Amino acid sequence: MLEKINKPNDVQKLSVEELPELAAEIRKFLIRSISKTGGHLGSNLGVVELTIALHRVYHLPEDKIIWDVGHQAYTHKILTGRKDDFEHLRMEGGISGFPRRAESACDSFDTGHSSTSISCGLGYVKARDLLKKKYSVVSIIGDGALTGGPAFEALNNLAELEKNYVVILNDNQMSINRNVGGMPRYLGTLRTSAAYTDLKMKVTNALQQVPKVGEEMVDTLRRTKSSIKQLVIPGMLFENMGLTYLGPVDGHNIPKLIQVLEEAKRFQGPVLVHVITQKGRGYAPAIRQPAKFHGTGPFVIKTGQPKKMTGPSYGHAFSEVLCEEAGKNKKITAVTAAMKEGTGLAKFAELYPDRFFDVGIAEGHAVTFASGLALGGLIPVFAVYSSFLQRGFDQLMHDICMQNLPSVFMVDRAGLVGADGRSHQGCFDLSYLSMMPNMTVMAPKNDLELKEMFRFAVRNSGPTAIRYPRGAAWTGLQEHRAPVERGRSELLFRGSRIALLAVGSMVETALQVREHFLKQGVELTLVNVRFVKPLDRELLRELAEDHSCFVTMEENVRIGGFGQQTADFVREEELPVSVSVFAIPDQFVGHGSVDRQRQLLGLDAGSVIRAAERLLKKERSYDSVRLQETTGES
Amino acid sequence: MLEKINKPNDVQKLSVEELPELAAEIRKFLIRSISKTGGHLGSNLGVVELTIALHRVYHLPEDKIIWDVGHQAYTHKILTGRKDDFEHLRMEGGISGFPRRAESACDSFDTGHSSTSISCGLGYVKARDLLKKKYSVVSIIGDGALTGGPAFEALNNLAELEKNYVVILNDNQMSINRNVGGMPRYLGTLRTSAAYTDLKMKVTNALQQVPKVGEEMVDTLRRTKSSIKQLVIPGMLFENMGLTYLGPVDGHNIPKLIQVLEEAKRFQGPVLVHVITQKGRGYAPAIRQPAKFHGTGPFVIKTGQPKKMTGPSYGHAFSEVLCEEAGKNKKITAVTAAMKEGTGLAKFAELYPDRFFDVGIAEGHAVTFASGLALGGLIPVFAVYSSFLQRGFDQLMHDICMQNLPSVFMVDRAGLVGADGRSHQGCFDLSYLSMMPNMTVMAPKNDLELKEMFRFAVRNSGPTAIRYPRGAAWTGLQEHRAPVERGRSELLFRGSRIALLAVGSMVETALQVREHFLKQGVELTLVNVRFVKPLDRELLRELAEDHSCFVTMEENVRIGGFGQQTADFVREEELPVSVSVFAIPDQFVGHGSVDRQRQLLGLDAGSVIRAAERLLKKERSYDSVRLQETTGES
Repeated sequence: MLEKINKPNDVQKLSVEELPELAAEIRKFLIRSISKTGGHLGSNLGVVELTIALHRVYHLPEDKIIWDVGHQAYTHKILTGRKDDFEHLRMEGGISGFPRRAESACDSFDTGHSSTSISCGLGYVKARDLLKKKYSVVSIIGDGALTGGPAFEALNNLAELEKNYVVILNDNQMSINRNVGGMPRYLGTLRTSAAYTDLKMKVTNALQQVPKVGEEMVDTLRRTKSSIKQLVIPGMLFENMGLTYLGPVDGHNIPKLIQVLEEAKRFQGPVLVHVITQKGRGYAPAIRQPAKFHGTGPFVIKTGQPKKMTGPSYGHAFSEVLCEEAGKNKKITAVTAAMKEGTGLAKFAELYPDRFFDVGIAEGHAVTFASGLALGGLIPVFAVYSSFLQRGFDQLMHDICMQNLPSVFMVDRAGLVGADGRSHQGCFDLSYLSMMPNMTVMAPKNDLELKEMFRFAVRNSGPTAIRYPRGAAWTGLQEHRAPVERGRSELLFRGSRIALLAVGSMVETALQVREHFLKQGVELTLVNVRFVKPLDRELLRELAEDHSCFVTMEENVRIGGFGQQTADFVREEELPVSVSVFAIPDQFVGHGSVDRQRQLLGLDAGSVIRAAERLLKKERSYDSVRLQETTGES
Repeated sequence: MLEKINKPNDVQKLSVEELPELAAEIRKFLIRSISKTGGHLGSNLGVVELTIALHRVYHLPEDKIIWDVGHQAYTHKILTGRKDDFEHLRMEGGISGFPRRAESACDSFDTGHSSTSISCGLGYVKARDLLKKKYSVVSIIGDGALTGGPAFEALNNLAELEKNYVVILNDNQMSINRNVGGMPRYLGTLRTSAAYTDLKMKVTNALQQVPKVGEEMVDTLRRTKSSIKQLVIPGMLFENMGLTYLGPVDGHNIPKLIQVLEEAKRFQGPVLVHVITQKGRGYAPAIRQPAKFHGTGPFVIKTGQPKKMTGPSYGHAFSEVLCEEAGKNKKITAVTAAMKEGTGLAKFAELYPDRFFDVGIAEGHAVTFASGLALGGLIPVFAVYSSFLQRGFDQLMHDICMQNLPSVFMVDRAGLVGADGRSHQGCFDLSYLSMMPNMTVMAPKNDLELKEMFRFAVRNSGPTAIRYPRGAAWTGLQEHRAPVERGRSELLFRGSRIALLAVGSMVETALQVREHFLKQGVELTLVNVRFVKPLDRELLRELAEDHSCFVTMEENVRIGGFGQQTADFVREEELPVSVSVFAIPDQFVGHGSVDRQRQLLGLDAGSVIRAAERLLKKERSYDSVRLQETTGES
């Protein structure tokens, strides 16, 4: 069946009876394809039927389908003519793992972060109506994403809407893990209220058979604020908020889905369709281990085992040191925004359930909640991905830094992340964290140092962020273990002329640069920066005495980053050194391998070596000029 | 009565009968005091009785009272021994207009921004329970702040709580303006459900009289998921979310308030108490014009008229140009997050109601909503205060800049704001906006230029931010009207030696500096920067040819700001000029007058003049060295 699907709307040429078979084929295709390339599996397996139904009811690219987060849009990509591109999914030059307008006119919103689809959808709706266009708009949001504040802000804003707009609640009872909080619990009660729904739909449908009068009666019923309505209509929470609630409906029953979606499409005003889906549907390992198969590398289909094992990650090192320190200090607590496994908190949660807080997809709340924990006398440790912490920017500034509260931010997936691409690159944290007064910003060179830094952080008197990259932790330079002291860098190798000042992950690269020049008999100085804020001014001053150039290296945007801060200091103090900044230029970085990304951005060892060669040459010619001057030649 | 209130808990020494008189006296005191100093009036007049009741039921500083936003904490300050400090409210060295832990042990959370109190409260509660302490925690949040996403994230997170925690919903039916959306509409239906409440409280109270069994029955009733409960219990939306709902209760009836608060305090689990208050209560002008008296300067009590008129603000200029351009281009739409008047959108809303969107206190949603408008073919203009736009940091990055969407951000209250202090300073926007790829960042020197910049922005092909200060717009240099071109600064006066590169509000200061030196026969160059991003590289290169120093001036933090970007460019290009950066140092800036703040931060004309004098001297001595070298002396 799948071979008939080659361009948008091809799915409309099949009969409804053929669709379950198509779904089965797509599922097989997804498992096979992702087992080779890696990617998001569980969420995509969950929405195969829902996506097919959507593509039956809506016409693309005229109608706008907006996927929240966007990692579940693989079937959508298949149904819009991108089946063959899955070979190069998430690779350089290949298709993205998320919707991408540049890829297809059928993608209407680029995403990656959570809880944005309703806001965007409402914007589309308002634009449509003002410009007197006729297309439909539908947003698909997971129950996990629905706990995110921006989604609620948008829901709140729907109430006044008088035109059609459909929000589909894709309820798989989890984000990456099982969801937490009042909203998920409430949804749980709805899932069992099928009887009410059927009753309601029967009443509604029956009434709507009677033209005009019937419609009006349904309308009146909906608008009644009486308790009778509360008896008849489930989804009162949404109805109270001003949305019409339809559901719950089985998300794997295509005919039923089409029926409900058709009904939703006809309605004037905002509608919420509650669809129950199963994450990982059709692939037992993904159902059993939802967190593992949320996003995965290549795996063996039969066993679900990863094709290649990577070494322990920084998250793993963090997990160990957290549990160790928490054993000694009962004040240490851990916070996650629905990322228990991803951020390395699973073990801690098991050992210290009372001190573990999963707040749901709610980074802003997580940060302010941490401020409350700190004010109450605890030591909060919020483990979070760099790009998601951006959601807590104001809270970090206003609730944490403004009060200089002792608190720890473990900023994972910092720097380049590779396959997840633009929305997930952790390229801004050094800048946005450094601009906050009172914040201490650190980055470890290897796993051992992450542990030492954590031990420092939980004892620090103010907010402390430690940022570290995705993937296997570097285990080089283990013998270098200078104690971690506030604002002090680690001088790894003292050479001369050029001092490489490398932040975190760039120490490994800097070491390669150093070794390259060592072979040529030139010994460069190598500094493990450790503290991006506060800068190690003392060391910079000292190095300036016998070096001609500082080369700063960081996996962070140039604007506001470590290089600029170093250069600023050098300039202010009028230190007699030049500064060369290696950082990410002012652009978004697409998907591809981290190594390739570094090359493209000029952050690989080769780029730094070439620049250092130029610097050394210049230094020599400068020296010879100086020599001439001194000897009186001209 | 007020003279008896001199330290925390003094209010507990009065009889309940005396409290209404105390309330009346406090109200009079507030009106009198704020009429002299300026400050937040309406919100404070609304919570006088509520605050008194809170101080009867809770014991400070042991118990934690957390005020959302915090501008309504004046009565709390009076009741905790700070009555006499109101003379210097919001002045340098005086008390803050917001809770401040450094001011009193009775202030438990420093605020200023909205929708944080529940997150912080929950943190306190968890800390209390883990550390086995006994104090009570209560958060007071307005119905406006409740539409903010972070408040919802926190509410969602309360569901699992088994210990006492009280959230007071201070429902005055407005934020600064009348509230919008599903939640406020729902609260409206609750306000009229007093009958249900009374019934419920009667049932509950009656049952609770019967020890143990009664309590259990109440518990069972609460836990029932049946529709019978829906008939009996109002506030179902909150009950659905896992909170116990008490209310609505008249917020100006002290005995009733005390009764409900006592009941709430006893309950195990999270409780929401719905209190109906009137903003501006007791002062007719504030009731009639809530937006005007939300925050006010000194005013004449009798008339409500301001004591001194200030000139038209930048918001006013924006209002004019927006309406003008919107008349010509129907695609221009305006978005506000509950700040219609403050941001200058009132006129537009009146003229073009279809194209005006007040999304409530929801900056994150506002930004993503704007992305939807842009994708749908409109030109969104989001007018917002600089410090509040921080809430939309991730959305700007991910939903706007990542897709390079044409959209305009009018960033008001940028730079130093004066009396509102730390939480309201707009000191970070140049940095956080500049680090975003694709963003254009501008600042006008005067009102006319703001208009020209706006005309440029609505025609620009990507996201554009224009930042401008609070207060009267500067109207100097009106004759300088070089057309606004992308990435081009305006060379106001060509002099020599030192080029002053001034951003927005600093052009006025730079002009003073220039005039100072003119009197001494030294003519400095003065550049109106206009574009902080992209930099005018061409002009910088050109000026470097015949200047020895660039002096950058900006009301923004140094880290990541204009000065560092300029210095970075100069260094990369190896331009033969020194760079002196005048920016806000790495600290939070307290309340006081803007002029004083500039002095303290070294951003006033005097500071720049002193630095420029040093630079000129240095230049001269450098020149003489060079001269010596050239003439062969040594």
